[in-house]
Amino acid sequence: MKKNILIIPGDGIGQEVTTWGKQVLEAVAQKYNHEFVFDEAIMGHTAIEATGDPLPEETLEKAKASDAILFGAIGHAKYDNDPSAKVRPEQGLLKIRKELGLYANLRPILLFDELLDASSLKPEVLRGTDILFFRELTGDVYFGEKKRNEDNTFASDLMNYHRYEVERIARKAYDAARTRNRKLCSVDKANVLETSRLWREVVQEIAQEYPDVETEHMFIDNAAMQLVKNPKKFDVVLTANLFGDILTDEASQIAGSMGMLASASIGDGTGFFEPIHGSAHDIAGQNKANPLASILSAALMLDIAFGLQEEAKLVTTAVAETLKAGWRTGDIANAETASDKMLGTNEMGAKVLE
Amino acid sequence: MKKNILIIPGDGIGQEVTTWGKQVLEAVAQKYNHEFVFDEAIMGHTAIEATGDPLPEETLEKAKASDAILFGAIGHAKYDNDPSAKVRPEQGLLKIRKELGLYANLRPILLFDELLDASSLKPEVLRGTDILFFRELTGDVYFGEKKRNEDNTFASDLMNYHRYEVERIARKAYDAARTRNRKLCSVDKANVLETSRLWREVVQEIAQEYPDVETEHMFIDNAAMQLVKNPKKFDVVLTANLFGDILTDEASQIAGSMGMLASASIGDGTGFFEPIHGSAHDIAGQNKANPLASILSAALMLDIAFGLQEEAKLVTTAVAETLKAGWRTGDIANAETASDKMLGTNEMGAKVLE
Ligand SMILES: CC(C)[C@H](C(=O)O)[C@@H](O)C(=O)O
Ligand SMILES: CC(C)[C@H](C(=O)O)[C@@H](O)C(=O)O
Repeated sequence: MKKNILIIPGDGIGQEVTTWGKQVLEAVAQKYNHEFVFDEAIMGHTAIEATGDPLPEETLEKAKASDAILFGAIGHAKYDNDPSAKVRPEQGLLKIRKELGLYANLRPILLFDELLDASSLKPEVLRGTDILFFRELTGDVYFGEKKRNEDNTFASDLMNYHRYEVERIARKAYDAARTRNRKLCSVDKANVLETSRLWREVVQEIAQEYPDVETEHMFIDNAAMQLVKNPKKFDVVLTANLFGDILTDEASQIAGSMGMLASASIGDGTGFFEPIHGSAHDIAGQNKANPLASILSAALMLDIAFGLQEEAKLVTTAVAETLKAGWRTGDIANAETASDKMLGTNEMGAKVLE
Repeated sequence: MKKNILIIPGDGIGQEVTTWGKQVLEAVAQKYNHEFVFDEAIMGHTAIEATGDPLPEETLEKAKASDAILFGAIGHAKYDNDPSAKVRPEQGLLKIRKELGLYANLRPILLFDELLDASSLKPEVLRGTDILFFRELTGDVYFGEKKRNEDNTFASDLMNYHRYEVERIARKAYDAARTRNRKLCSVDKANVLETSRLWREVVQEIAQEYPDVETEHMFIDNAAMQLVKNPKKFDVVLTANLFGDILTDEASQIAGSMGMLASASIGDGTGFFEPIHGSAHDIAGQNKANPLASILSAALMLDIAFGLQEEAKLVTTAVAETLKAGWRTGDIANAETASDKMLGTNEMGAKVLE
């Protein structure tokens, strides 16, 4: 199989973790005799520094032309503390999501038994948890009209959804539920928001097409609570862009660390694969970041973008075995972990490759 | 001291838990020689059934005329499953918040040592947690213009803030931080939302007036994660209406159960005190609900609305001792709790009164 893969390291630890996702893809290509052709492009703070634009035209063109994209992370503290900055790294990420039509963001909460102890939740609460989030990614208050009045006394963002936006992601989520435990929980705030009431109506309609899947509707506040209280009760969770952003980060604690979670953004064209963690500038360049989320993002790419299930499985298994052997990066180590089992980014990446 | 207290039981378990908040207030009045005059009014589903209006004019008038309000809960599954219903219980709650100018919702996450085991989080993660949330309550996407186009293909809600709305709650939160550990974390999504960027700018300005308080800004996704990972790191948390709704429900798991958490809504006039839990129709009328959140709401009323610190302390201590003696309602019991220590709503209320 021949595939063109675009690597966009982005900002902060994005650079160092993406190296390992790429190396794992190279190893897979060699072992299974695939031809993966790699190219690289810039985005985010890195791109602003180089070109003034968080998503240079060249990056977008390369992205559209590639078969899949492995992305690192985006963001820089500089902009966070300057709310008036007009050009911001995140604009690059939001724009590429929109331009590539990446309307469905899949975030599997994969629980490695070895990491049960790394979580702040009790092992008995966690054990058996297996959630697949479908977060809508190109609509909602993220992309609605933004306003600020001239004297800075008022600001607004339009939260909104079109029926077709809800329909297409709902179908994807229901299709996935059929391959799993046939339970779907749609999360909204229909007791307050008109957008959520439309969301709920549409999901209720689509649910009719999937009578074999059990549907539940939950308010976001309750869902944020239930996720901590009893994560096992969830199978597929379907939700809007903003609520999905919040819930999936919260859920990362179930997997022990954000450093473990990969995501796949799919839709109309090229798929986009990235860790859910951010750019973590505080530890960037220190060989401290956990490369596993990038490696698992590569596995998702093999599985979802290329249909290479066996290859994907191999990568996930390699990650599981590395953990089983006791190797840990700082974020997933617990107090009792012997320090000689603590690895840096590069050593962890190398262990998985072995 | 003479005070007029309006009781609004609302829907579902609101009825049964509020009885106990009221009885505790009566007991306090007797012991300390205060005169608390009680009146009662309807709101929510109960009011829709009786009058067609979730907040009848009479209730609003009584509310405005009283010195403080003890509220139960609102909501009914009937409306949740019917997203097209025009008249909804929650409208009553939203309207009274707006009409009374209750712009600051205080939600203390009070951790009783005895309940460390009832939480899904590890005791060592929880121990020492003490958070005071300031949730903005009369702005944001809750009250912005709602739209739905005629053919139901589009819906929107306007998320928005005025500068003065952020200023007034920020000052209240900073004032509170001064009486605590002098740490304030403001939560927003300034990397995406214009509303959040205004929020952050204003908080940065107000922060200048409080150089003795350490200020941190955090994105909502990160905050939802940190709250599970390391709740101890928070002192005062200041946030917008929607984010506060989500974070405080999530945080309820820290306290072991929603059934434990009280809230105070304050602002321009009469204060409004309520449990953070909902109407829980599934257990309503079964003598299963936990009355402690209502009792603790009464304690908040004594403290915040009437300045009766000693009386408030007595109530909180009575709750702590009841828990210390091993008494539990179903929501806060753990598997090992001997069943003869399991109480219904009424028995639990009576224990605290003792
Ligand atoms: C960086 C930011 C714009 C982004 C988002 O909110 O979507 C991130 O948090 C994510 O979840 O991918
Ligand atoms: C009932 C609902 C409208 C309300 C809210 O979202 O504010 C509730 O969840 C709360 O937190 O008081």
